[in-house]
Amino acid sequence: MPMPSLRFMKKTMLKGHGDDQYLYKDIRLNFSSNVFPHFDHEGLFCHLAGRLDDVVSYPEPTPFSLESELAMLLDLTPEELCVTSGATEAIYLIAQTFRRSKTAILQPTFSEYADACRLHEHQISFVYDIDHLPERAQTVWLCCPNNPTGSVWNKDQLLNCIASHQEQIFILDASYAAFTLAPLITPREAAALPNVLMLHSMTKDFSIPGLRLGYITGSENLLHRVRLQRMPWSVNQVALAAGHYLLMHKDEYEIDLTALMAERERMAQALTALGCIEVWPSDTHILLCKLRFGKASALKDYLARERGILIRDASNFEGLDECFFRIAVQTEAEDDELLKGIIDWLSE
Amino acid sequence: MPMPSLRFMKKTMLKGHGDDQYLYKDIRLNFSSNVFPHFDHEGLFCHLAGRLDDVVSYPEPTPFSLESELAMLLDLTPEELCVTSGATEAIYLIAQTFRRSKTAILQPTFSEYADACRLHEHQISFVYDIDHLPERAQTVWLCCPNNPTGSVWNKDQLLNCIASHQEQIFILDASYAAFTLAPLITPREAAALPNVLMLHSMTKDFSIPGLRLGYITGSENLLHRVRLQRMPWSVNQVALAAGHYLLMHKDEYEIDLTALMAERERMAQALTALGCIEVWPSDTHILLCKLRFGKASALKDYLARERGILIRDASNFEGLDECFFRIAVQTEAEDDELLKGIIDWLSE
Repeated sequence: MPMPSLRFMKKTMLKGHGDDQYLYKDIRLNFSSNVFPHFDHEGLFCHLAGRLDDVVSYPEPTPFSLESELAMLLDLTPEELCVTSGATEAIYLIAQTFRRSKTAILQPTFSEYADACRLHEHQISFVYDIDHLPERAQTVWLCCPNNPTGSVWNKDQLLNCIASHQEQIFILDASYAAFTLAPLITPREAAALPNVLMLHSMTKDFSIPGLRLGYITGSENLLHRVRLQRMPWSVNQVALAAGHYLLMHKDEYEIDLTALMAERERMAQALTALGCIEVWPSDTHILLCKLRFGKASALKDYLARERGILIRDASNFEGLDECFFRIAVQTEAEDDELLKGIIDWLSE
Repeated sequence: MPMPSLRFMKKTMLKGHGDDQYLYKDIRLNFSSNVFPHFDHEGLFCHLAGRLDDVVSYPEPTPFSLESELAMLLDLTPEELCVTSGATEAIYLIAQTFRRSKTAILQPTFSEYADACRLHEHQISFVYDIDHLPERAQTVWLCCPNNPTGSVWNKDQLLNCIASHQEQIFILDASYAAFTLAPLITPREAAALPNVLMLHSMTKDFSIPGLRLGYITGSENLLHRVRLQRMPWSVNQVALAAGHYLLMHKDEYEIDLTALMAERERMAQALTALGCIEVWPSDTHILLCKLRFGKASALKDYLARERGILIRDASNFEGLDECFFRIAVQTEAEDDELLKGIIDWLSE
């Protein structure tokens, strides 16, 4: 296989996302992606191996069978749910639906909302406080639980905010909903509101980022507007087969959240105890950290090359700077390896 | 699994495409899809079964490795090629790149160009003659070889037309290029022109409609504009693994075109000889047919229910009416079965 030239890779790659593992050799431990890596996919792989001849047929033009199954599971009507090629397609479809809107995006957060809104000619304001939304905003994007901070907006505060801004469409990205014990607005609650769309990620729920499966929930009226924007066949047959299988086997994909949250707390305290790292309060398995001196890119580079450990340089999130990095906590032993790597780098 | 209600299916499905096999029971012979069904995919399936654990990682944000490999094969630079999630994503990306253009679409043809252009607020003119393009058109879409007629525009005539309309961007859909012996503009020739984008379909080349793989070729300048419109991760890991494999094994996916064209000619003559069906001249394996009496939908329904044979009701192509149907020729024995079914329906 010819390797693409570096010039070409630099020119054509979309930059700035986590899980850039493919750019490094010999990464053993990956803290850079928020995808939970501890599921056993054996049953899924077996099932998919037996369904590969599906690829000689077109998928359903729109994935209505999977939409019906998901809707039933979430106590929604199928009209209140729209399956997409990852939450990413959901983001771009919604940005397209509300093209040329005045848009507020709560920061710091996943950069894709702004990228999608720019592409569809929105007028974007970056805001940092949910209680001071710009009057003129027509759409408001927020990620809850948030990436990269791992924090959850207070549910009552969020519901009040939505209720007091009936003229604005709220887009709530719930991709990390499976990774918190904090109370969240449910898809059923959101679908009863006239001005809320929720994004969901099967990528995150089931750790299948390579397949691209996500969905949008909301009122039938709002969803209808989004549906008009989608192209046919955007979800491929293998992703659909996986979706059907995973819903039937979702019990095998349950995370021990109590243990995971405890490990996140242990790790947050250990990092804070180092004295030169500031750790943001988190309600999930994600931790946003700020180096009091040094650059996140240097730490990342050291860990990748010397230890085979990948973290996320978070300097390119809006509102953050070169001191920020993000990790998703793993097992206790793995987290201790990361901790040791960071300590060694700090002492160099 | 719950079956979606008919009401829901009707409301949410995107309509009007071929290969609606999933709507029928017991279809044995499928003439409705233009996808060539006679390849042996065993090697591909084996390869993919061994690569399923790719799905626990994100794909490359943009599929630059596959782009490099394809470019090398077509004597292009990687900057002159952009891989997409099927030719469908290519169509929507291009429509988005030239949003709000004045657009001419040569008819009758694949309905997706008009759907995509409508979505991106083009002003669309349907035209029927390449020598009389509207002066005001900024983009011109044509399918060559064309769907549903199977015909190829004369190469010199097309090149002259492109040369004499330097201010217009021509979008040439070459999805069916593998199914004709007629001379076509090559990707290399098109990339040297400042005003041509070509669409290509790995779906059609390799009969993998369930995976969603296509690409765009053209000059670096034009491609750069298209690239800016795409979302990350639109091509999933399984599709990418398939793409790499298929390029390495493309010799196993060669069609005996001389035989296929001869069979198409035999079938065209046999249908014409019936006296009540008009058959369009074709340069590919596709035949567009017009019933001199009766409706295509009734013929389709009869063949599907009584014979387990699926044809394409072509009445919803712009410029065609309820008398039109389309078939893709298959083996001699299968084509004879279709012929017999049509004869029986005509004599009822």
